[in-house]
Amino acid sequence: MSFAAVDVIRAKRDKGVLSDEQIDWVVAAYTRGEVADEQMSALAMAILLNGMTPGEIARWTAAMIASGERLDLSKVGRPTVDKHSTGGVGDKITLPLTPLVAACGAAVPQLSGRGLGHTGGTLDKLEAIRGFGTRLSNEEFTEQLRSIGAAICAAGDGLAPADRKLYALRDVTGTVEAIPLIASSIMSKKIAEGTSALILDVKFGSGAFMREVADARELARTMVELGKAHGVTTVALLTDMEVPLGRAVGHSVEVEESLEVLAGGGPQDVVTLTLALAREMLDAVGLDADPQDAIASGRAMDSWRALVRAQGGDPDAPLPVANEVETITAAADGFVSGLDAYAVGVAAWRLGAGRARKEDPVSTSAGIILHRKPGEPVHAGDVIMELRAEDAAKLPAALEVARGAVTLAEAPPAKRPLILDRIS
Amino acid sequence: MSFAAVDVIRAKRDKGVLSDEQIDWVVAAYTRGEVADEQMSALAMAILLNGMTPGEIARWTAAMIASGERLDLSKVGRPTVDKHSTGGVGDKITLPLTPLVAACGAAVPQLSGRGLGHTGGTLDKLEAIRGFGTRLSNEEFTEQLRSIGAAICAAGDGLAPADRKLYALRDVTGTVEAIPLIASSIMSKKIAEGTSALILDVKFGSGAFMREVADARELARTMVELGKAHGVTTVALLTDMEVPLGRAVGHSVEVEESLEVLAGGGPQDVVTLTLALAREMLDAVGLDADPQDAIASGRAMDSWRALVRAQGGDPDAPLPVANEVETITAAADGFVSGLDAYAVGVAAWRLGAGRARKEDPVSTSAGIILHRKPGEPVHAGDVIMELRAEDAAKLPAALEVARGAVTLAEAPPAKRPLILDRIS
Repeated sequence: MSFAAVDVIRAKRDKGVLSDEQIDWVVAAYTRGEVADEQMSALAMAILLNGMTPGEIARWTAAMIASGERLDLSKVGRPTVDKHSTGGVGDKITLPLTPLVAACGAAVPQLSGRGLGHTGGTLDKLEAIRGFGTRLSNEEFTEQLRSIGAAICAAGDGLAPADRKLYALRDVTGTVEAIPLIASSIMSKKIAEGTSALILDVKFGSGAFMREVADARELARTMVELGKAHGVTTVALLTDMEVPLGRAVGHSVEVEESLEVLAGGGPQDVVTLTLALAREMLDAVGLDADPQDAIASGRAMDSWRALVRAQGGDPDAPLPVANEVETITAAADGFVSGLDAYAVGVAAWRLGAGRARKEDPVSTSAGIILHRKPGEPVHAGDVIMELRAEDAAKLPAALEVARGAVTLAEAPPAKRPLILDRIS
Repeated sequence: MSFAAVDVIRAKRDKGVLSDEQIDWVVAAYTRGEVADEQMSALAMAILLNGMTPGEIARWTAAMIASGERLDLSKVGRPTVDKHSTGGVGDKITLPLTPLVAACGAAVPQLSGRGLGHTGGTLDKLEAIRGFGTRLSNEEFTEQLRSIGAAICAAGDGLAPADRKLYALRDVTGTVEAIPLIASSIMSKKIAEGTSALILDVKFGSGAFMREVADARELARTMVELGKAHGVTTVALLTDMEVPLGRAVGHSVEVEESLEVLAGGGPQDVVTLTLALAREMLDAVGLDADPQDAIASGRAMDSWRALVRAQGGDPDAPLPVANEVETITAAADGFVSGLDAYAVGVAAWRLGAGRARKEDPVSTSAGIILHRKPGEPVHAGDVIMELRAEDAAKLPAALEVARGAVTLAEAPPAKRPLILDRIS
């Protein structure tokens, strides 16, 4: 069936519900280049402002999956389970989590992305490891899942090409923040990659994509429903991103922190979230292994080293270190009462860790070390934050933003739960 | 000042008010090709759905004017006054009105357009006259206004190029129906053409762009304010477009009806509206000539012949006639109670009078003659409508739509006023 693109746009503009045939047609025709970018962007804005019904979102997701191939992971020989985070500042959880869950007997098919704006990307972090390659063919991907139970790489061109094209368009047209489009974008890739179960880490707060809990909850519910509709066991955790995760924000510094977690240490929040997500992943595929035991026994670290080696990396190579350093110190005694994740993310970006456009390179060693986090006491002169850059010229602008991230008070702030809710 | 296009889009998406600097930049950068079509279409959709303040509309219009040249008609030596209709079915008023007002001492700088969809365009109608040329240089345009007081032609490429580009984009992206964009599109061209006064014929009803009176009134008010803000005396009439104007819908058939009006005859509604608009135009520039006298004396017809000749046309050449004819007759005695303007417009379009895309040619002789209009009695077997086409193959589809346009009843319908309101 064929439609005029302008009629589909008008239908959504006028708050109508798109038919299955309209959705199938517009997604396929856009992928083929028969619906123009300027038409799809107008439709995306209408979707952002007027919304979509659950039925429309489900069909849109199915059409995006149908635009490309769907991987068959049945030959992997282990239960497959993936994790997806909606992104945040200091969110390196994929790095310790993937080998940890693999060490517990599952296979984790991690198709990851790159950072954009103030949030970091898993692939950028891994590229801080000498030799690590993030492009695998479908055959390499499947074989690695079979042999070591873990692979972290970029999605191949064959998976959900409609999403690839649409995502690039949304990025430049102010239409990223539409829940139906976010949900269908994430879920079309995850369903097409062939995982049998999926745990979602949906973040809210200053450093997250969704600042409001209500929006994050709606996104989580929408994605859980989409997963179930496509036969993928899906659970979401709603987690706090008001402050950065852990004490490291950047690439090499986050790899280092991930290694601490795999070695049995690491910041409490990173450990807590890694274990919570690992337990959800193992539950979802009916494995009752204990992730804490996998860390304590060293099996998780072995799995990490196997993963790095399998993708061409050297797990023993020293990580790059940035030599230009500035610190932010406390002006008075007291407690850190706030550490705004968004501002820390922007500061890291300005240090060179982030990119403004997809094509931009990143500095793998630039980043921030958080010496104090909210609730912790400080004395006048104590270092709160340490900023690292390859290029000293980038320090002043980053410092300015980073200073604005910190608030001090005479008393510690109320504790915020890291995991607010579970949606299944 | 420079901005990121995506920030301007986001501001309007989030119901913000764009700053003067943002508007100036986005219109100019779009004209230069620095803001991409897909970005402008997302912005247009956000404007359509979230609206603009009067201040934003005024600035947007000014930016569109500033994208090109502004004609100086001070050397014309007569007061200049133009008319613009928002378009309808059977709306040939520009044809008798322009020479009529010129015959009364004003100069009428008519920059007109072509038909699109179910509405006809003045330039297409004039091209039914052998030899008539619709492209004039700025110098020819000004000289013709000086010598005979009338010119009807296409807008030159130099006038409001931002509008030309944006209009083509809106047409394919479902963003035509935004009052701020319609108002700024019309007014930027009219102000740039240099007229000192402007009368707007803002139509509502089935055959109009704005079906609802409230929307038409808002558009009229918006345009009147824009005109005044730019020093152009502007008045709008709100007129009914529930039924077609006059008895002819097409190109050559409408030229013929226009000649009847200039000769002192013609359908009552066309005469009434022509005279009402002529009086408004003359009032607006302080001329107290009587348009009825200009018709009765033959001066209006002389002015028409001078206009046609000046633009290369032969006023004595026979008009093209379509030879394939079908009629719709009354099934029973009674009254015509309704004649849906939109359906009549679509029927004429299907006969070959309209175009689906800007590049399509039109048949100048295809059209419809309305033998009966609402309120008029019919006997069983009487012809209500006559459909004419060059190509007999086009008749069946047109007949089908045209039949649906007519409703009969035992009693005549309530009378509808042709001119509902005047806004100044």
